[in-house]
Amino acid sequence: MRILLLNPNLTEAVTESCAVAARAVASPGTSIIPATGEFGAQIINSRAENAIAAHMVLQMAARHAEDVEAVILAVSYDTALYAAREMLDIPVVGMTEAAMLTSLMVGASFGLVVFGTPWLYREHVAALGLSARFAGLRSIERSAAAVYNDPESVRSAVVAAAQALAAEDGADVVILCGAAMAGMARQLQPQVEVPLLDGVSSAVPLCEMLVRMKLPPPGRGSFAAPRGRTTAKLDPVLTARLAR
Amino acid sequence: MRILLLNPNLTEAVTESCAVAARAVASPGTSIIPATGEFGAQIINSRAENAIAAHMVLQMAARHAEDVEAVILAVSYDTALYAAREMLDIPVVGMTEAAMLTSLMVGASFGLVVFGTPWLYREHVAALGLSARFAGLRSIERSAAAVYNDPESVRSAVVAAAQALAAEDGADVVILCGAAMAGMARQLQPQVEVPLLDGVSSAVPLCEMLVRMKLPPPGRGSFAAPRGRTTAKLDPVLTARLAR
Amino acid sequence: MRILLLNPNLTEAVTESCAVAARAVASPGTSIIPATGEFGAQIINSRAENAIAAHMVLQMAARHAEDVEAVILAVSYDTALYAAREMLDIPVVGMTEAAMLTSLMVGASFGLVVFGTPWLYREHVAALGLSARFAGLRSIERSAAAVYNDPESVRSAVVAAAQALAAEDGADVVILCGAAMAGMARQLQPQVEVPLLDGVSSAVPLCEMLVRMKLPPPGRGSFAAPRGRTTAKLDPVLTARLAR
Amino acid sequence: MRILLLNPNLTEAVTESCAVAARAVASPGTSIIPATGEFGAQIINSRAENAIAAHMVLQMAARHAEDVEAVILAVSYDTALYAAREMLDIPVVGMTEAAMLTSLMVGASFGLVVFGTPWLYREHVAALGLSARFAGLRSIERSAAAVYNDPESVRSAVVAAAQALAAEDGADVVILCGAAMAGMARQLQPQVEVPLLDGVSSAVPLCEMLVRMKLPPPGRGSFAAPRGRTTAKLDPVLTARLAR
Amino acid sequence: MRILLLNPNLTEAVTESCAVAARAVASPGTSIIPATGEFGAQIINSRAENAIAAHMVLQMAARHAEDVEAVILAVSYDTALYAAREMLDIPVVGMTEAAMLTSLMVGASFGLVVFGTPWLYREHVAALGLSARFAGLRSIERSAAAVYNDPESVRSAVVAAAQALAAEDGADVVILCGAAMAGMARQLQPQVEVPLLDGVSSAVPLCEMLVRMKLPPPGRGSFAAPRGRTTAKLDPVLTARLAR
Amino acid sequence: MRILLLNPNLTEAVTESCAVAARAVASPGTSIIPATGEFGAQIINSRAENAIAAHMVLQMAARHAEDVEAVILAVSYDTALYAAREMLDIPVVGMTEAAMLTSLMVGASFGLVVFGTPWLYREHVAALGLSARFAGLRSIERSAAAVYNDPESVRSAVVAAAQALAAEDGADVVILCGAAMAGMARQLQPQVEVPLLDGVSSAVPLCEMLVRMKLPPPGRGSFAAPRGRTTAKLDPVLTARLAR
Repeated sequence: MRILLLNPNLTEAVTESCAVAARAVASPGTSIIPATGEFGAQIINSRAENAIAAHMVLQMAARHAEDVEAVILAVSYDTALYAAREMLDIPVVGMTEAAMLTSLMVGASFGLVVFGTPWLYREHVAALGLSARFAGLRSIERSAAAVYNDPESVRSAVVAAAQALAAEDGADVVILCGAAMAGMARQLQPQVEVPLLDGVSSAVPLCEMLVRMKLPPPGRGSFAAPRGRTTAKLDPVLTARLAR
Repeated sequence: MRILLLNPNLTEAVTESCAVAARAVASPGTSIIPATGEFGAQIINSRAENAIAAHMVLQMAARHAEDVEAVILAVSYDTALYAAREMLDIPVVGMTEAAMLTSLMVGASFGLVVFGTPWLYREHVAALGLSARFAGLRSIERSAAAVYNDPESVRSAVVAAAQALAAEDGADVVILCGAAMAGMARQLQPQVEVPLLDGVSSAVPLCEMLVRMKLPPPGRGSFAAPRGRTTAKLDPVLTARLAR
Repeated sequence: MRILLLNPNLTEAVTESCAVAARAVASPGTSIIPATGEFGAQIINSRAENAIAAHMVLQMAARHAEDVEAVILAVSYDTALYAAREMLDIPVVGMTEAAMLTSLMVGASFGLVVFGTPWLYREHVAALGLSARFAGLRSIERSAAAVYNDPESVRSAVVAAAQALAAEDGADVVILCGAAMAGMARQLQPQVEVPLLDGVSSAVPLCEMLVRMKLPPPGRGSFAAPRGRTTAKLDPVLTARLAR
Repeated sequence: MRILLLNPNLTEAVTESCAVAARAVASPGTSIIPATGEFGAQIINSRAENAIAAHMVLQMAARHAEDVEAVILAVSYDTALYAAREMLDIPVVGMTEAAMLTSLMVGASFGLVVFGTPWLYREHVAALGLSARFAGLRSIERSAAAVYNDPESVRSAVVAAAQALAAEDGADVVILCGAAMAGMARQLQPQVEVPLLDGVSSAVPLCEMLVRMKLPPPGRGSFAAPRGRTTAKLDPVLTARLAR
Repeated sequence: MRILLLNPNLTEAVTESCAVAARAVASPGTSIIPATGEFGAQIINSRAENAIAAHMVLQMAARHAEDVEAVILAVSYDTALYAAREMLDIPVVGMTEAAMLTSLMVGASFGLVVFGTPWLYREHVAALGLSARFAGLRSIERSAAAVYNDPESVRSAVVAAAQALAAEDGADVVILCGAAMAGMARQLQPQVEVPLLDGVSSAVPLCEMLVRMKLPPPGRGSFAAPRGRTTAKLDPVLTARLAR
Repeated sequence: MRILLLNPNLTEAVTESCAVAARAVASPGTSIIPATGEFGAQIINSRAENAIAAHMVLQMAARHAEDVEAVILAVSYDTALYAAREMLDIPVVGMTEAAMLTSLMVGASFGLVVFGTPWLYREHVAALGLSARFAGLRSIERSAAAVYNDPESVRSAVVAAAQALAAEDGADVVILCGAAMAGMARQLQPQVEVPLLDGVSSAVPLCEMLVRMKLPPPGRGSFAAPRGRTTAKLDPVLTARLAR
């Protein structure tokens, strides 16, 4: 099974570290195909950059659609999640969505540890209709880059945030958000009293499951793929995908 | 991996048909251990019977806890879901919960096809905080037993209900609820324009995923297992489990 | 009028103190019939124990149904409230529900003072659909048993919690939750600036009112009593009740 | 115990029929003191008339406050409910509020049968935070006056509406709204499969209960009575009440 | 264009300062017609006074309805907003409503700075269905009169509250509530990092816009003006307006 | 004052008809600067095309930002509304948002008449937090193109939908959604009993108002413009805007 690990950010190091985390949990026989964005933000950190990244996600999704059996959005805002799901005939799973849905099978409420832009996460939780299970969010005030440069200090800030979510906000599970935190949940787990999840580690098995379920693409409704659409000046594969 | 397929109803035929459906989707190496209730209702069909079944679920869970790596609640109301999850140190997944969470990765909204007691399903959806994604419910006015006796007529009623949920209520995905419908989603899929899910087929891979994730049981919060509890006149394994 | 004061906990002292509080507010002519649980937890303090207690509640309810005109659930989680109400043909009122509904006639928002397990109270408030009127909750970190052993220190903690709910959370009314606090509202009222309620003192007059209203049991809908149900290995009165 | 039955409408016949219904359920020793509005609408039937009636309610409340031990608002919109409760030191109960709270102890959801202005009822349910328990509303398209002139036809319309609420909207209980329907619930009950409530019959016992509870008026918060207020050109008793 | 600036409080100084603020933002050709209440509270500061003011609002609205093209409610609780809108055939805009709707075009969430009675503001936000965009509220614990007497200290308290709403509660925009704060937003803006709004400055241009749109009064629905109503002992213009 | 009328669709005829409608309501001195998309969908009709259009919106916004004083999104989904508002220092108003906010000053609830993709509208209403005021939606099952080709039949379908929203769903106001309906509200108003609004006619005066208010761009919070961002392969003006 081939799964596209689609990171619309332009920073290949992030994609690569996600790919390492993904491969660590993939089943034998699953290939993780990393892909990094070509236009847009080096690191998405604003509403505007996120909106541009949605285009990037769709172009990348169109380009790889025939070569893979599923797509993981390796971007913590799950950028263009519904749009990509609608456009493709194969499963599309967002990394943060994956962790949130997994958390729902572990506890009654989840908390999020994020790097900045708390509003984008809150709006994503609300857009997914999961606010009733949302215990709260703690934002680490350091650049995502710091994860690579000063990992120890970042780790202790993450542990403190996770503990506060459990102790003060009543989170039963804590999710470490962001591609930069891929794989970190397992490392920090011994220091935190409630289960820790990260996005990629949840998204890979969920994607594998959906592929195996072989659900047909919908023939009607809000996720029926667009057909016969006329567009201009898009990447040819995206043009072709929408014109099917 | 050993997964307990726990049906607190007393009807072994239902457990058995769930087990068939479960094995059809289980990974190689996964054993499905079916278990049927000993006290309570033949078929749960009221608030009272469901409340009694919660006790049965916990007793069965306690009895098998040491022998399995995860538990699937093979009862469409996901009876005692949070209580069992709290009490055990291993993953517990409800069959209807599993289908609902899976549906969230496939569409924006799900509909339910049920056999009677629509209120119990509505209350369950609300209790899980998933109302924002709930498109609606259609109730088949036949006994669950009819599934076995007059399957053709039941199937066409189920297909009609599923189509109505998609066409009139805007459901992107339809879930066939009830142990009696285990495995039916796959059979009826060709007749319905949106993806169909059933509980057991979603619960098995989700359970396998959780087992592989090896999340620790929480040391605090609302799912920390009860410890050192004093009880009386319960089944000895249940007594022991609560007294740990 | 005979009212069953049903405490599914196994601790008779708690039942007894509830009965004292109930009799203090009962109308002339009302008899309070206390009943204490036989199986399950000494003191319910977890999701699992609460789920088991639901069975106990129904068995006790079935046993006394013919001898009383109404039932009060003298357990702070209102365990099995809807199930008992469905199964019986007489009024069933939960003690915490009673205080919450009473509070709605006194102010716009209520706060709760509880002994531990705050999540069970939050989930109960949400399940009753009363979150819009819920100002917040303060948990006293002492065992319920301490109420009996170190009453003075408990009382001052309760007063402090009640004052904080009024002053910081904007609660118009404060409810003292738990059978252990039966009767305490009246004692502590002089020390708190907003009205204090406790469960039993609200439940008794509400129960009396419902008995006098002589509403018929519903012939349809989600509270129509189960009929002709087949069960196994339950207490004979419970079996009989479900088989009617 | 003296209870003011305060109807801000100017139609004494309505007050009188409410008083009959109130006395039918009052305890021995309870006097029902009817009072009819002096200024405003003959029959409130718009947002504007209802807003004016709020002033009338407060003036009447101030006039009788010293002579009674509680107030029932005998107006189906529970006009000025929170304002009167804030201003007085004695219990104030709205007739529709009373029926809704009573219904919550009988079923999981209530439906309303109303005469016109459905929006005012919907907004009242929402303002009281009870939308989660609200099954729906059916409006009888006849003047409230018709209740007196063509009672038979009105009754059959009410029965049909109540049955539809139970059968189609899933209402566990149905409330007959409006002073004009005082006492009708009992008469029509045999024709409807779920319990029927009307406002006055619920409000009287709830009022009696609150009087007996002797809760102190709040010393702080959103229902602390206004003190030392300077007003002009109001009825002298209202002026005095606000200036206390 | 003539716009009535309707302040149901009896304090002309407040009306006058609102009028100054209104004229500062009015288009050329717009006349602001100030009107101050005649009966009721000097300064509304309780639920009861606000309910009485609703009658005052309607009487004033009826008196001026023929002479103006729109009405602004220059009272921070937007007293009788829906009732006045229903009764008149011309636009009616509340000052706080105006600021809240304006804020929605500037940010994702708004905060409120108020003088006392926080509950009345919270209930107004909820009644307008805007809770999802409401970041929070900070109450200045000084009398509204202090705005006139000790303006410097009030201003620094307002700035501190606004900054806290932005920094701690995540408000994208802050609204200064209350007629007493008319015009203050512009003065304090340089000291606050997010946009500041006040009611009157938002209400005037919105009113002008609605007048220019020339929408017809509704012929049906919840805002269709009452017709042919029979009332008693009201101000003659109010009587006439309702009797149309 | 110069207002950019930004239509990310590629169909100039739609932009042009919006511009006609915009100029019809613009104040003297306001110039409407129409702009049509360059890449993406001819007519946006799916989640994917809408996501791509977000990029187009931002590129167009960046290109014109220095030349205009405000931006109207002339696309019925208000595509990239928050992202454009964040990125620019001038007001940005969405046409559907504008109509919805205007409707809130006219009635208590609004209905929408749309051409297809009802889910995108529902999700937009929910994302804006306005669900509590949303009466419902009726979808005209014709292509937007039909508006130009068979206007009479479209008009009668729109009138029927608007009337149904008022009569059956209780909408106090009806909004005609979509650039294709620009200006139609005024024409059809005589045939509909409740006020009709369209997006452009609401957006122009709201935009003018915001320009005149001269609110500063936020210095913090979720709409503070991105600064110093590193991007690649974007249109140079967009690159420059994000790199400021």
